[in-house]
Amino acid sequence: MERFLDEHRDLKAEVYGKLEQHRDLLLPTLEGISKEEHRELVRKILRLLVAEGYRPMHFYQHDLQKYYYLGELMALVDLSLTVKMGVQYSLWGGSIVNLGSERHKKQYLEDVDQFRLPGAFAMTELQHGSNVAALQTEAVLDIAADEWVITTPDDGAIKWWIGNAAEDGQMATVFARLKVPSPDGSGAIDDHGVHAFLVPLRDAAGNTASGVEIRDCGYKVGLQGVDNGSLKFTGVRIPRDNLLDRFGTVERGGQYRSPFSASRRFAATLGELTGGRVGLCCSSLAVLKGAVTVAVRYGATRQQFGPPGAPEVAVLDYSSQQAKLMPLLASAYALHAATRFLVGQYAEAKRTKEEDLVTDVHSLSAGLKAYITNFTANALNVCRECCGGHGYAAVNRFGAWRSDHDIFQTFEGDNTVLLQQVAGLLLKKYQERFSGTPMQATYAYLRQMALDSLPANPLASHETSPRHLRDPAFLSRALKYRVARLLHTVAARLRKHTKRLGAFGAWNKCLGHLLALARAHIESITYARMSAALDTCSDGDCRKALKAMADVFALGCIQGDVLWRNDDYIAAEKVKAIVKLQEDLCRELRGIAVPLVDSFAIPDHILRSPIGQSSYTRDPYAEYLRSIGWTPS
Amino acid sequence: MERFLDEHRDLKAEVYGKLEQHRDLLLPTLEGISKEEHRELVRKILRLLVAEGYRPMHFYQHDLQKYYYLGELMALVDLSLTVKMGVQYSLWGGSIVNLGSERHKKQYLEDVDQFRLPGAFAMTELQHGSNVAALQTEAVLDIAADEWVITTPDDGAIKWWIGNAAEDGQMATVFARLKVPSPDGSGAIDDHGVHAFLVPLRDAAGNTASGVEIRDCGYKVGLQGVDNGSLKFTGVRIPRDNLLDRFGTVERGGQYRSPFSASRRFAATLGELTGGRVGLCCSSLAVLKGAVTVAVRYGATRQQFGPPGAPEVAVLDYSSQQAKLMPLLASAYALHAATRFLVGQYAEAKRTKEEDLVTDVHSLSAGLKAYITNFTANALNVCRECCGGHGYAAVNRFGAWRSDHDIFQTFEGDNTVLLQQVAGLLLKKYQERFSGTPMQATYAYLRQMALDSLPANPLASHETSPRHLRDPAFLSRALKYRVARLLHTVAARLRKHTKRLGAFGAWNKCLGHLLALARAHIESITYARMSAALDTCSDGDCRKALKAMADVFALGCIQGDVLWRNDDYIAAEKVKAIVKLQEDLCRELRGIAVPLVDSFAIPDHILRSPIGQSSYTRDPYAEYLRSIGWTPS
Repeated sequence: MERFLDEHRDLKAEVYGKLEQHRDLLLPTLEGISKEEHRELVRKILRLLVAEGYRPMHFYQHDLQKYYYLGELMALVDLSLTVKMGVQYSLWGGSIVNLGSERHKKQYLEDVDQFRLPGAFAMTELQHGSNVAALQTEAVLDIAADEWVITTPDDGAIKWWIGNAAEDGQMATVFARLKVPSPDGSGAIDDHGVHAFLVPLRDAAGNTASGVEIRDCGYKVGLQGVDNGSLKFTGVRIPRDNLLDRFGTVERGGQYRSPFSASRRFAATLGELTGGRVGLCCSSLAVLKGAVTVAVRYGATRQQFGPPGAPEVAVLDYSSQQAKLMPLLASAYALHAATRFLVGQYAEAKRTKEEDLVTDVHSLSAGLKAYITNFTANALNVCRECCGGHGYAAVNRFGAWRSDHDIFQTFEGDNTVLLQQVAGLLLKKYQERFSGTPMQATYAYLRQMALDSLPANPLASHETSPRHLRDPAFLSRALKYRVARLLHTVAARLRKHTKRLGAFGAWNKCLGHLLALARAHIESITYARMSAALDTCSDGDCRKALKAMADVFALGCIQGDVLWRNDDYIAAEKVKAIVKLQEDLCRELRGIAVPLVDSFAIPDHILRSPIGQSSYTRDPYAEYLRSIGWTPS
Repeated sequence: MERFLDEHRDLKAEVYGKLEQHRDLLLPTLEGISKEEHRELVRKILRLLVAEGYRPMHFYQHDLQKYYYLGELMALVDLSLTVKMGVQYSLWGGSIVNLGSERHKKQYLEDVDQFRLPGAFAMTELQHGSNVAALQTEAVLDIAADEWVITTPDDGAIKWWIGNAAEDGQMATVFARLKVPSPDGSGAIDDHGVHAFLVPLRDAAGNTASGVEIRDCGYKVGLQGVDNGSLKFTGVRIPRDNLLDRFGTVERGGQYRSPFSASRRFAATLGELTGGRVGLCCSSLAVLKGAVTVAVRYGATRQQFGPPGAPEVAVLDYSSQQAKLMPLLASAYALHAATRFLVGQYAEAKRTKEEDLVTDVHSLSAGLKAYITNFTANALNVCRECCGGHGYAAVNRFGAWRSDHDIFQTFEGDNTVLLQQVAGLLLKKYQERFSGTPMQATYAYLRQMALDSLPANPLASHETSPRHLRDPAFLSRALKYRVARLLHTVAARLRKHTKRLGAFGAWNKCLGHLLALARAHIESITYARMSAALDTCSDGDCRKALKAMADVFALGCIQGDVLWRNDDYIAAEKVKAIVKLQEDLCRELRGIAVPLVDSFAIPDHILRSPIGQSSYTRDPYAEYLRSIGWTPS
């Protein structure tokens, strides 16, 4: 099973082994230290990795799988560390790689890689996050000086939440409206929309650059180890060459040239954010695995109540606890398969630059990021609650995980906005369904569904045997049917409402429907990837366990959906049978839950949760008692 | 509307006014200070209240409504403060009031009230939380010395999470197994089960009492301002009189006497925990109101995207945002009505000691505590996410609220356990339904439902007009029907499974069903209280708003329930009509959402959330910019 889960076991053993020699960097809890101390701790670990020869920027450019795996590994060390690395490499370095020219890469990337040139990705403003096109910061070309003049026109345009900006960042990729004097000589200024510019923030000694003002964004809900800052520019001058000009450039004298239309260029620029989202899927997944590991081990240990006169039973033997935790365990495996698939597809898209694949991966990364981060956020609440009072001790880590992870739902694309992108692409594909355009595998079933008539098979819709309900053909088809039906109906509703409300109004009216569609699509893909992954497993017991988890995931998606109320595809008694089967499968999984979380193979010194140690079976509370000072450590 | 919400407006103005003169005690955020500093801050505010003449212990004994209202007011100042006060007055003082004799009250309560005698409530042990009957700490009578000898038999019985124990507590009410030498002279020891004993912990100078060991429980997920400690007793001797002996006493020489059977006595002892739960409902509700206030004001301010060429729209104008926030707003009002009802009933039960009412209130407090705290915990996640990145700034308070409030779901009764108590009582009432015993109002409808035949009215089940769907008769009946149906079916399932699995096994198998039943019952009561409250409102606009919120609450309960899939009571097209109506009502509420949260009347200096200030309409980001240091404060 470990082999099923991990493709880079050597890297894991190596990196975690090195950290084991630096126990002083792995504090039991980060509560009680200041944000400055936390930031310094993060810097130390990052510098240690660099000193040990790891080159994240190099991985990012040449071995994406290794890059993301390293991020996943660091997530359980400290989410602040993963995010700091994400800022430095995916965002700051990534903006140079993806938006810059060769000269930019040559000049900066080696220093970025070694953390000698910490940098920031200054996109978000106080008043604009999701709506990037409406950013207000300006870069106006001074033709005579051949320089850009960067200005924050008002306080609403102060760059906000910029990671690496409060303390470390020496430069930033600043997103600003590119403005040049109109070539018609009228004196007017042409606005070419949002572009990226390299702007120095401070020198290596920490002196702020002229015209730049920086404020620390202060304490956040979590991630105190990341130095988020806000930035205000007053006539900051940078060379013309500092425009990251892969998608649009300005010649000496002010001539603007781009191979793309404005909207295409904007899409291409934002498209490069995909990489960051892939990373968020990996680290969110790591947290999910960590939390489920602790909750399952504790649940198998902790005893409370029992039949009269008999010993107490483990809390994991309660069906209510199983109903909460087993779907989380199953989903961790399923989402693992989906995430590994995404990483592979993303690497492939970067390699081939094949346009359909790029579009597909962009949408998948948006959808999976929204789905996983929301799933993990909810799972953390459930896991903490399942560990009762002891789950509330800071040393057991649920609090830090939740506080740090929370913003994963918002940054690098607000989840509600991202899911709308997924729905938007599905609708586009749906409209193209008869046009003869070839479709990527991910969407091919839409065609099939559109060609199939929607009405259900009355025989199958009433069939309730576990054999049928666990048949991959049924599960797969039901999940796809759900997407097709949601798509079909929302397309009709949008058409109808657009007449009266216009496109924006109709979209707004159907938002709930659109979000449900996007989630259903991600669930369908996740199940497909889990099925594909389990088909590659040769060991009988592992396969059986993976199959049970795939079923729990898929049945959970079907069971929880109110769609069937208005639909004959799955009749009422079939839903009832699914609920019962799900209970049975959760009870079955409970029996193997501990080995299944052990397979995540998170070493104790990384998990650092006294109630979730791998040694819990011998003496469940030993480590916890030590951590509170009742027994010597 | 403020009149509808607040019965103690004078107290609010007075207390919050006093705090306004002590701005140094109201920090913008408590991140970045140590737990010791936070505890000192909490002590200062508590001492200030006492110095200003507030007497919580006196309120607790003579004016319960005022007592709980004060707790609700303090919740938005700092949840650590509310919990510290809950420990000192509801738990420590409350244990003396409820479990002690007159001599105990005379000796201690005045000092407790003035916080001159901080104390603890030492029930939970490392290995036992919910299962109080299995506590292991022992109190053995030494007849010769006429003293109790308190001992922690092993590390699993260390008292854990004890509030006020780590730093302040001078005494504790310790729950321990009362053991006396058997009167038969055999030398055997009789175990009379768990009783409460007054045990000194440290003197006023802070020196720990002989035989007592104390460890700080360390950082928690939140509530750092409460000094939770763990306690180990080694042969600690206390006078025989220190047994809190209202329900069972031991005479000189060791004779045990109690007017109750062991199980009745245990129930009576635990029954006294009710008061703490009432307090948790009040403070959880306060947090819900605070969070909804911030999210609604910010949502009405924040603009993002919009129709092409038109100005951006407020995010609260998106239907997805309305679907998230309007039900929270409606529920805050409905749960307010239910909580005020609970406080009134509890006061009545304490006054009359009428047995049925006591039982009823015990169950209602358990159910409402579980329901509200779970609801608020989820609401905090939603509200933070609705406020996007700015919701993640510590100053805007969602993080602290969530971290502090989280444990409300676990302490003073784990929610999953409490809901089972509610379900248990419902089943008991159900079984008594033909026995002729008079029923409390809360349960009376069960009789009616049992007498009504369950099958639905085929005409009504298909009726979809908004007029019908918003008819209180329909809503009330549907919510009650749901309880009756869940009760009826779970009773049948329990009967069936008990044959094969025994009572414990059958209960375990039906847990999901039982929890759904308990929640449905609480929702039905909540709607009934909201309806009753709105009937007392004379102002037309207020009434209309309250009616809309009552409808959103009730329709939300009905809409989200999968029950109707297997039930003819509400047909598929009716569910669909409810979904549509709910969207319409949420859009309607959006129009008055701001005045509705303004009615919660939380002063800015108490809410302390820069993005949720009452002045937001004038300059939405002004206070936030100040808080980060961009403009002078």
